[in-house]
Amino acid sequence: MEIEVESGKLAKALAIVSRIAVNGKAILPILNNVLIRVDARKVSLTTTNLDMAVVDFLPVSESKDGVVTVPARLLAEFVGNLPKGAPVKIIADGTKVVTESGKYTSTLNGTVADDFPELPEIDEVKMVRFKMGVDEFKTGMNQVMMACSNDMTRPALTGVYFNTDDGTLYIAATDGYRLAERRFIEKVESEVKAIVPASSLSEVMRSLSDEEEEIEILFDEAQVRFRFGEIEITSKLIDGSFPDYRQLIPKTNEAEIVLEKGELLRVTKLAALFAREVGGSIVLEAKTATKTFSVASVANEFGENTSEIETTIPKDERMTLNSRFLIDALNAVDEEKVVLGFSGKLNPIVVKNEKSNNYTHIIMPLKS
Amino acid sequence: MEIEVESGKLAKALAIVSRIAVNGKAILPILNNVLIRVDARKVSLTTTNLDMAVVDFLPVSESKDGVVTVPARLLAEFVGNLPKGAPVKIIADGTKVVTESGKYTSTLNGTVADDFPELPEIDEVKMVRFKMGVDEFKTGMNQVMMACSNDMTRPALTGVYFNTDDGTLYIAATDGYRLAERRFIEKVESEVKAIVPASSLSEVMRSLSDEEEEIEILFDEAQVRFRFGEIEITSKLIDGSFPDYRQLIPKTNEAEIVLEKGELLRVTKLAALFAREVGGSIVLEAKTATKTFSVASVANEFGENTSEIETTIPKDERMTLNSRFLIDALNAVDEEKVVLGFSGKLNPIVVKNEKSNNYTHIIMPLKS
Repeated sequence: MEIEVESGKLAKALAIVSRIAVNGKAILPILNNVLIRVDARKVSLTTTNLDMAVVDFLPVSESKDGVVTVPARLLAEFVGNLPKGAPVKIIADGTKVVTESGKYTSTLNGTVADDFPELPEIDEVKMVRFKMGVDEFKTGMNQVMMACSNDMTRPALTGVYFNTDDGTLYIAATDGYRLAERRFIEKVESEVKAIVPASSLSEVMRSLSDEEEEIEILFDEAQVRFRFGEIEITSKLIDGSFPDYRQLIPKTNEAEIVLEKGELLRVTKLAALFAREVGGSIVLEAKTATKTFSVASVANEFGENTSEIETTIPKDERMTLNSRFLIDALNAVDEEKVVLGFSGKLNPIVVKNEKSNNYTHIIMPLKS
Repeated sequence: MEIEVESGKLAKALAIVSRIAVNGKAILPILNNVLIRVDARKVSLTTTNLDMAVVDFLPVSESKDGVVTVPARLLAEFVGNLPKGAPVKIIADGTKVVTESGKYTSTLNGTVADDFPELPEIDEVKMVRFKMGVDEFKTGMNQVMMACSNDMTRPALTGVYFNTDDGTLYIAATDGYRLAERRFIEKVESEVKAIVPASSLSEVMRSLSDEEEEIEILFDEAQVRFRFGEIEITSKLIDGSFPDYRQLIPKTNEAEIVLEKGELLRVTKLAALFAREVGGSIVLEAKTATKTFSVASVANEFGENTSEIETTIPKDERMTLNSRFLIDALNAVDEEKVVLGFSGKLNPIVVKNEKSNNYTHIIMPLKS
């Protein structure tokens, strides 16, 4: 096995694949390694943590067929510290892997590739496919991923639910306390219902560089594959059923209040400072009499805080909620004005954009 | 007590003083608080952790005399989140402290000032004084502080030793494995021998903004005071005797090798990657026969690495040392070329600039 490639390209590819490799004590030590395969001038770098795998197809200037595995992080850091722009040679002699660039040389103790876990076979022909712009993909993911749960005892909530309904692909996530839904791709012809682990999506997000323009998403019964540039990330799906979340979104609201997003975010942050001692609990109050919308922290040993915003108030409302959830929701809406939909203090509050209706975020109330 | 001041100025002052306040569970809960004192239009904000104290003298537009203490971090964060440029009023009514800026209001539960620890009395007239430019102060500190020890069982090594010798003020630090010394101020008339805690110096460094040009340093037997802009930081000195470090610095070297600093730093970092499994141990070798200076990691289960630099070699040398210490030393010298002084494998290596001789860094060898 032998390849020659410019150091910057190699460093970039290794940085991406080495992140998915296990780093440190693994039950299978070979999971620390990257598999370098050269087959008829095609070079691929592969790592896996058994839940997901990443393959980077590397354009090289010279190559000789062969396959070997070497410690991924060590190779990535070594190459990452070489001067940019110089050619780097990687030459395997059995399991000794020599990396050379001018006067810099390292010898890594690799292992034979036979023990490297087989990646799950995928028949792409049978997969359901979607394509979209990378910017939209990132925006959508950032709008729903914060609502994923960390609670591994309810695995279905630890992922993002990709689901089609009436020719539209939606993504949704909920941790039981809040729910975010985004209309993702319109006019799709295929159907899908699949829960993608949030951890795999985070890896996809981190691996997307600014150069990528389009991303392809492929599903089969058990796996999802993301393809962009020269990278292919394949992940297991979460086996479980996602809650029937649409029934949780109020169809109408008792009162809708329009507010400047920046102003509401500021007063929520101010109240959140004082709410730290009481689990983040803050009180929203809309008063028709004074035409004010106020955000207040609950008084505690350190003090209390109230801020008021003047605006149109259709109906008196009051509810208690977690300040962090409201801050997350406000950071996710993308217009200057935001609509808060109230339906009494026992029902969830709806946070959405003033104009577009492609994003809905709901937050459950706290007991007050 | 009442003050009115622009929010940005107040936020900046509170950010500095709140860092020194204890944050969280303190034996004396009042150490979480900032003391706000107004006396004849002079406003001071004071915090202390008993080892050190900071006072910020705040220029205000309006004030009424009085004194109160309030939770420092909470007030700092509240004011830090207010819109910049707006006037902020702080009004104490007994121990209730109301902070107002337009429609934003908070009420903090303060405490009476009587319990706030008395700051140590200092008679500045009797103190030894030095003055210097802030840039030089920062450069010098950055060149020696990395050599301070964290070992609290040897307190004298956990600080920077300010000492005058023959009309020059030096600063030095050592953790027993390495030693850094910087000529700090030339032609001083006063004398001093004092160990300043590294933690206090870190706080001074963090509090120095780009606006400050000059810093004044005052010593008495037990304390040091740093004064810059409107800020005064006072710290206890470390009670103990600093090792007689000058005898540890080799007067002459067997062999001096001049190298590009950037190149040596790169090859040391490459070797350090492979040295992680062996406690950072790397081998430097100078060979007259090949006219090469090489840096190599010790082979271990993952592999090994060697890089060579061609240069003039006066004498064969070989020594083993900790890669992190060499990286720290190279980051501290400030010229493009660096001189490594060898005196055999059992003696410390000297790292210094090629031209100026105001900075000396020595590193003890490891057993090889």
